Amino acid sequence: MIPIPHGYFFATVEAGLKYAHRKDLTFIGSDKGAVAAGVLTTNRFQAAPVIVAREYLNNNTLIHGLLINSGQANACTGNIGIENCRQTLIWAGEHFGFSEQKILPASTGVIGDHLPMTSFQNAVSRLTQQTDQKALLNTARAIMTTDTFPKIAWRQKHINGQEIRVVGLAKGAGMICPQMATMLAFILTDADVDRKIWQKIIEDSADKSFNRISVDGDTSTNDCLLALANAKSGVQIGASNRHIFETMVQEVCQDLAAMIVQDAEGGTKVVSISIIGAKSQEQAESAARCIGHSPLVKTAFFGEDPNWGRIVAALGRSSAEFEPEQVSVFIAGIPLFLNGEPVGDGIEQIIKPYIQKKDIALTIDLNHGFHEYSLLTSDLTYDYIRINADYTS
Amino acid sequence: MIPIPHGYFFATVEAGLKYAHRKDLTFIGSDKGAVAAGVLTTNRFQAAPVIVAREYLNNNTLIHGLLINSGQANACTGNIGIENCRQTLIWAGEHFGFSEQKILPASTGVIGDHLPMTSFQNAVSRLTQQTDQKALLNTARAIMTTDTFPKIAWRQKHINGQEIRVVGLAKGAGMICPQMATMLAFILTDADVDRKIWQKIIEDSADKSFNRISVDGDTSTNDCLLALANAKSGVQIGASNRHIFETMVQEVCQDLAAMIVQDAEGGTKVVSISIIGAKSQEQAESAARCIGHSPLVKTAFFGEDPNWGRIVAALGRSSAEFEPEQVSVFIAGIPLFLNGEPVGDGIEQIIKPYIQKKDIALTIDLNHGFHEYSLLTSDLTYDYIRINADYTS
Repeated sequence: MIPIPHGYFFATVEAGLKYAHRKDLTFIGSDKGAVAAGVLTTNRFQAAPVIVAREYLNNNTLIHGLLINSGQANACTGNIGIENCRQTLIWAGEHFGFSEQKILPASTGVIGDHLPMTSFQNAVSRLTQQTDQKALLNTARAIMTTDTFPKIAWRQKHINGQEIRVVGLAKGAGMICPQMATMLAFILTDADVDRKIWQKIIEDSADKSFNRISVDGDTSTNDCLLALANAKSGVQIGASNRHIFETMVQEVCQDLAAMIVQDAEGGTKVVSISIIGAKSQEQAESAARCIGHSPLVKTAFFGEDPNWGRIVAALGRSSAEFEPEQVSVFIAGIPLFLNGEPVGDGIEQIIKPYIQKKDIALTIDLNHGFHEYSLLTSDLTYDYIRINADYTS
Repeated sequence: MIPIPHGYFFATVEAGLKYAHRKDLTFIGSDKGAVAAGVLTTNRFQAAPVIVAREYLNNNTLIHGLLINSGQANACTGNIGIENCRQTLIWAGEHFGFSEQKILPASTGVIGDHLPMTSFQNAVSRLTQQTDQKALLNTARAIMTTDTFPKIAWRQKHINGQEIRVVGLAKGAGMICPQMATMLAFILTDADVDRKIWQKIIEDSADKSFNRISVDGDTSTNDCLLALANAKSGVQIGASNRHIFETMVQEVCQDLAAMIVQDAEGGTKVVSISIIGAKSQEQAESAARCIGHSPLVKTAFFGEDPNWGRIVAALGRSSAEFEPEQVSVFIAGIPLFLNGEPVGDGIEQIIKPYIQKKDIALTIDLNHGFHEYSLLTSDLTYDYIRINADYTS
C-alpha cells in the first residue's frame, strides 16, 4: 500500500483526446491549499499549459489542484491554445469549487493540435464523480504516452513521532534530455514548508535527478515538474529536519528519473556514466553528456560491445581538460583502457558478463582534478527507431 | 575518364590489416614535391598518423606522397603507435626514394590495435610494383571502411589557354559530424599555389563542406583532410585566377561531403537544413545543428513524417534568438508551420510526395535577421543500429 500523503485526492476519466478506451485526463486535488513549486521547460517553444502554469505559480497563491491530460500537448497552438488551457481550468474550478488560478495545468502528447474543447468540457464534468483518495495508480497511468509502465516513487519518515510523506509520479520515455524533455513529474507532500524553501528543494532535486538523465538528447515544449506541499501532516520543515526532508524529495525524484531511463523508448540497458577526476563539475558534466548522447556509444551498449574506442572518441570532443595518457575507462570497475592505452589481453571476455546485464556502470577517470558528475542514459536500439518513425508527436 | 591532375601516381595492395581479399593500403605519389595543406581532427584523442602528419606538415617542406591504410586506425596506441607510424613512412620512403618526412600518413579503422608491422612492411614492399597514373579508383576503394561506394569528385578549368585540374577522394560514413569525424579526404591539384594561400583555401573549403555535414554528431580520432598542389600544370594561382581555383576546390569538397552524407551508415535520405533569417551566422549554425543532430527529427524523416513539432522543439533548445510567433518551417518550399502556428488543413498530403524523395530540402525562417547557415544530414534508421551494434571500431 503506497503511503499517499494526507489531504490529496485523485480523479481520472476517459476524455478521448487521442487514445481510445484509455483514461487520459486526471485531476489531483488538495482539500487544503498547498504551497506550490515548479521547474518548467527551458525550450523557447513553450506549450500553453507551461505558459499558464508559470503565470499561476508566479501569483504565489496556494494551489488546490493539478489538471493533467495526455494525448494532446497543446503546444504551438498560439493564443487560442492559451485561452483553451485557461478555459479547461475554469471548468475544473467550477466543478471542484476553486478559482481557476488555484489549479495548475500540464499536457503531453501530439504537438500542434487544438484541444477538442467539447470532449474536454464533457470529461471535466465527469471528473467529480470519480474522486478517490487512493487512486494514485490510475493517475500515473492516465499521464502515460509511449511509456510502458506507470512510474510512482515514495518515501515516508517519522520525525520526532510525527510522520511526513512524499510521493511522486512521472511520465516520460523518449525525447528525454538535459533540461527535462517530454517529461511530466508531480511531487506531493503533506509537509508544511515555506514557499521559497520548497522551490529551492524542488530545483535542487531536479538538478540531481531529472536533469541527469538522457535518452536521446532531445527536449520538449511541455516538460514540467510541479510540486505541492499542503501541510496536512502538521510537520513544519525547519533547520532541524530540512536535510531529512530534502533527501526524501531528492530520492523520490531520483527513483522516478531512473524509471524514466529504464522505460526509455526501445531501451534495453540503463547505463550510469560517472566522470571522476575532472578539473571542474562543468567539465565532468560536458564529458558525461558527450558520451551519454553519442549514438555510436549508445548503439555499442545495445550490441553489448565494450567499445572504449567510441567512448574516448566522444570524450575527446567534450570540453573536459585532460591528458590522453592519463585517462582510464572502467566497466563495472574493471579497467579496459588504462592511462591512455587499451588493456587488451582478452579483457573483453572478463567484462562480457557485466556488459550483458541490464544495468551497466561506466566510469571514466580523467585524473585531472577532484570533481565528478553522473548521468543515466539508455542504449539506442531498433525499437527506438520503430517507435519514433511511426509515432506522430 | 576522370581528369587526374598531372604528375601524380597511385599504388594499392592487399596488406591484410583487417579485411580479407580486399586492398587496404595505398600510396599516392607526386614526382615533383608538392605544397601540402591539411585540416586535422580537433578531438583530444589524436591518432598516431594525425600527430605525425601535423608534425610533418609543420616542417613546411615539399611533400612527395600520402600513405593511407584502412582497417586499423592506429589510435590510442601510445608512443609505440607513433613509432610504428614513422616506421611505415620510412619503409615507403625507402621504396619510393623519398625521406620519410616527405610522406604524410592517414589511417582509418579499428581503434586501439597496434599495426601488424610485419604484414605492413611486406605490403609496402609490394606497393612499388603497382604504381599507375590512372588507378585513382583503386585508391578510393582501398580507403573505404563501412562505405558502400568509393567517393571521387573533380573539376578542370581552362584559364587563359592553360588547364588546371583538381581531384578529390574521400571515405566516411558513420561518426560524421561537426569537426570532420571518421572521415578521410584527399585533394590533389596540379596548380602552382603558395603554401599559405593553399592552407587558407583548404580550411575555407572544409568549413563550407565537411564541417557542414552531420550523420550522428560523433567525431573521431583520425579525421583528416590532406591536400597536395604539385605545380605540374605550370598555372600559378594569383589575384586574377584565385577565385576560380578556390571555387573548384570548394566544389570538389562539397561534392565529396554530399557523397559522405548520401552514404551515411544506414541512411535513406539526405536532408538539407537551411536556417534563414537568423540574427547571426553562429545562431543559424546552432539552430541547424540542434535540428540536424536530433534523433527524433532524423527518425521522423526516416518515417517520412513531416513532423514540424519535433523540428521546432529542437530549434527551441538551440541558442538561436527568435520570437516563436514569427518562425516558419518549409519542406520543399511548402510551409507546414507558418508564423508560429501549424498550417494544418491537410498540408501533410501536399508535402507527402516531397518527403518521400531521397533528397529533402528543409528550410526554417527565424524572421529575426539576415544570416543563414546550411547543413546536410541523414536520417536515422534500423540499418544505422545494425551496422553500429555489430561493428567493432
